Amino acid sequence: MIAWPEDAAKLPSAPASGFCLPGLVNAHSHVFQRALLAAGAGRGGGDFWSWREAMYGLANRIEAEVLADLAAWVYAEMLCNGYTWVCEFHYLHRRPDGSLDEPPEAMLRALIEAARRSGIGMTLLPVLYRHGGFGRRPLAPEQRRFFLELAEYRELLAALIAEEGPRLRIGIAFHSLRAVELDEMAEVLSWPESEGRPIHIHIAEQPREVEECLVHHRCRPVELLFARLAPDRRWTLVHATHLSAAEIETLRASACTIAFCPSTEADLGDGLPPAAELFSPPPTALGLAIGSDSELVLSPWEELRWLEWGQRLRFGRRGVLSAQGGEGLLRRAVAGGWRAAGFSGHGEDRPEDWIELSEEAPALLEASPETLADQLIFSGERGVVARVFAGGKLLIRQGSHPEAAALQAEARRALRFLRSR
Amino acid sequence: MIAWPEDAAKLPSAPASGFCLPGLVNAHSHVFQRALLAAGAGRGGGDFWSWREAMYGLANRIEAEVLADLAAWVYAEMLCNGYTWVCEFHYLHRRPDGSLDEPPEAMLRALIEAARRSGIGMTLLPVLYRHGGFGRRPLAPEQRRFFLELAEYRELLAALIAEEGPRLRIGIAFHSLRAVELDEMAEVLSWPESEGRPIHIHIAEQPREVEECLVHHRCRPVELLFARLAPDRRWTLVHATHLSAAEIETLRASACTIAFCPSTEADLGDGLPPAAELFSPPPTALGLAIGSDSELVLSPWEELRWLEWGQRLRFGRRGVLSAQGGEGLLRRAVAGGWRAAGFSGHGEDRPEDWIELSEEAPALLEASPETLADQLIFSGERGVVARVFAGGKLLIRQGSHPEAAALQAEARRALRFLRSR
Repeated sequence: MIAWPEDAAKLPSAPASGFCLPGLVNAHSHVFQRALLAAGAGRGGGDFWSWREAMYGLANRIEAEVLADLAAWVYAEMLCNGYTWVCEFHYLHRRPDGSLDEPPEAMLRALIEAARRSGIGMTLLPVLYRHGGFGRRPLAPEQRRFFLELAEYRELLAALIAEEGPRLRIGIAFHSLRAVELDEMAEVLSWPESEGRPIHIHIAEQPREVEECLVHHRCRPVELLFARLAPDRRWTLVHATHLSAAEIETLRASACTIAFCPSTEADLGDGLPPAAELFSPPPTALGLAIGSDSELVLSPWEELRWLEWGQRLRFGRRGVLSAQGGEGLLRRAVAGGWRAAGFSGHGEDRPEDWIELSEEAPALLEASPETLADQLIFSGERGVVARVFAGGKLLIRQGSHPEAAALQAEARRALRFLRSR
Repeated sequence: MIAWPEDAAKLPSAPASGFCLPGLVNAHSHVFQRALLAAGAGRGGGDFWSWREAMYGLANRIEAEVLADLAAWVYAEMLCNGYTWVCEFHYLHRRPDGSLDEPPEAMLRALIEAARRSGIGMTLLPVLYRHGGFGRRPLAPEQRRFFLELAEYRELLAALIAEEGPRLRIGIAFHSLRAVELDEMAEVLSWPESEGRPIHIHIAEQPREVEECLVHHRCRPVELLFARLAPDRRWTLVHATHLSAAEIETLRASACTIAFCPSTEADLGDGLPPAAELFSPPPTALGLAIGSDSELVLSPWEELRWLEWGQRLRFGRRGVLSAQGGEGLLRRAVAGGWRAAGFSGHGEDRPEDWIELSEEAPALLEASPETLADQLIFSGERGVVARVFAGGKLLIRQGSHPEAAALQAEARRALRFLRSR
């Protein structure tokens, strides 16, 4: 781990602040969903599934240009909050009428362009989404933009891989066990294009997914995945909210990463994940990461505190993931995030990405090396990040993005467009 | 309710922003606890009760001057986040050696001075704290600063009442059913000094309190309170986390206010309160308020979203307190807050206190009257408040307090003093 007070000397340039950290990774992002609130979609009652209908309604209004405008702004906001890398999990591929874009990866290129404009690093995860439910249920009409033939997915992957560079990595993503059959996953993973890449999948977010998996496969989602595919350290499992004791043991013995998305999991009423059982006592190789998912909350500190607080609420005791103070949790989330993004180390191999904290921020007033992580996690808010180096370059100064005004103006246009349709 | 877009015309001066709201009330504050994190106290594991030991250790290092310095800064931070009034629940009265200060209300005067310096309005709640547990258990040595004879409490109350004015109200507070006997409460409430004042009490925060109440009184805390004292609209019950179905029905039929403190209740592992059962379908007169309590989170938006999200996590569905969108929840919290502070109306009688939101804030980009409350509650972060009028005067401009630098310097000194001892 670079750039804690004790090893800031390893940074390529001297930090202005006494406290700096590796950049955080946002391990799970659906950037277009940021438009939901301003579009007035998904408000009020209902459940995960009725929210999904509203979200599909928005998704079907998204076009590449609008997506680029919206995404660049959201990514800049992530940078201001301390995320220097994002894993973008993207499943809008076809035009609303079901035809392929020209080129087929036009939407994904819009995201690459948005990341470049903002300066955030990106692990782009084009998502395979083929079925409307377990047992190869047909896609609903509002899901047809998501569909790709395997050959189409492979071509798209090859086109994206050609774009890779220091700030762009390409990974593999399967939407979920509902949407991709295991033999299809196995085929994708057999391609040379897939070799060595990070692999992300939504898993066990909602009880209904578990129930349907039991009906169709006579086992639970994590059981099914491990029985058929032997997930290793390349795999990031997103949510993992509803697990059996046996699944928890399987995961604890694995080198996968779990990406928790506390704000979205709360917003959607998914439930509190068994994070305590998964991470204490500390497992050998299992990784922990956080993601902003539906983009209501873009603060890694708020995600981390409510991850910990959710566990305290489950057990009626304190210090569950932060038993030795917050620093252990913070280091774990940094390391797991970089692994989810496809990097091999724990942040040490990313001296290009680091953040400097503001010693003037209310949350960090009079912080010491011993109390810093707790102050950051449990009181951190917008403004605790003073400067951000992304890709070795100073990008965020005094908490602001240099292109903030232009990016915001473009985001306004995108939001207006999405609301007007 | 003043100052929503449709009735901004009622404000004494024209708002600069299209969106303004009544100021929010922070209905439960222990301002000195803000020092816990930087003092390195209360980190790591344990539970509510071990945290309380750490908190007592800090409390016993507090002196009036340090308290004033720390509090003025925390109150200024509350103002920047949209709280224009605070209910300060204060139980540090005696010197650490047990002797009375000179004057006896010196600590409370420090809080009054801090509120004046910051510009926040205050309902000051001097707390009666007489016993170490149910059945008149003796106070522990570390609780002796809290103790007051009834006659001492009455004198102190009279001294504070003489200070009342447009920005200062005095209320009554009983620490809890553990710390004050019911006949003592009845005596205090029989005094002319108590007439018409708001009355606050911690209740049913932890399972142990409920268990001990059952042992000593053969009934639960809310049952006990209602059986003996008939709480009316003057009463604010803080936390109300652990309630039976019968207690919920009793509260729903009452005109009390419940002050939820979601961030602190999560930090301390208290549990999620039965807010859904209390507030839906809407009760006739029961009020809802929010409080920052231990001061880790000073944002009303974060309290409100996690209040709602906590309920979604309990039930696995969305829109529990925000079934018709966030505006209902926001209006309810504004009205309940002002009632908890001792005002009769729902915010209409406070045109002196209002906040103007920043239309440039990321959370509020492209907000419409229909979506504003949802954007504010579910994405609001530091910076959404542009200007704050407190007591009819423009105090916060561009999200900053005019005395920010001086207040922060004094808070630094206070935090250093508390850490060094």
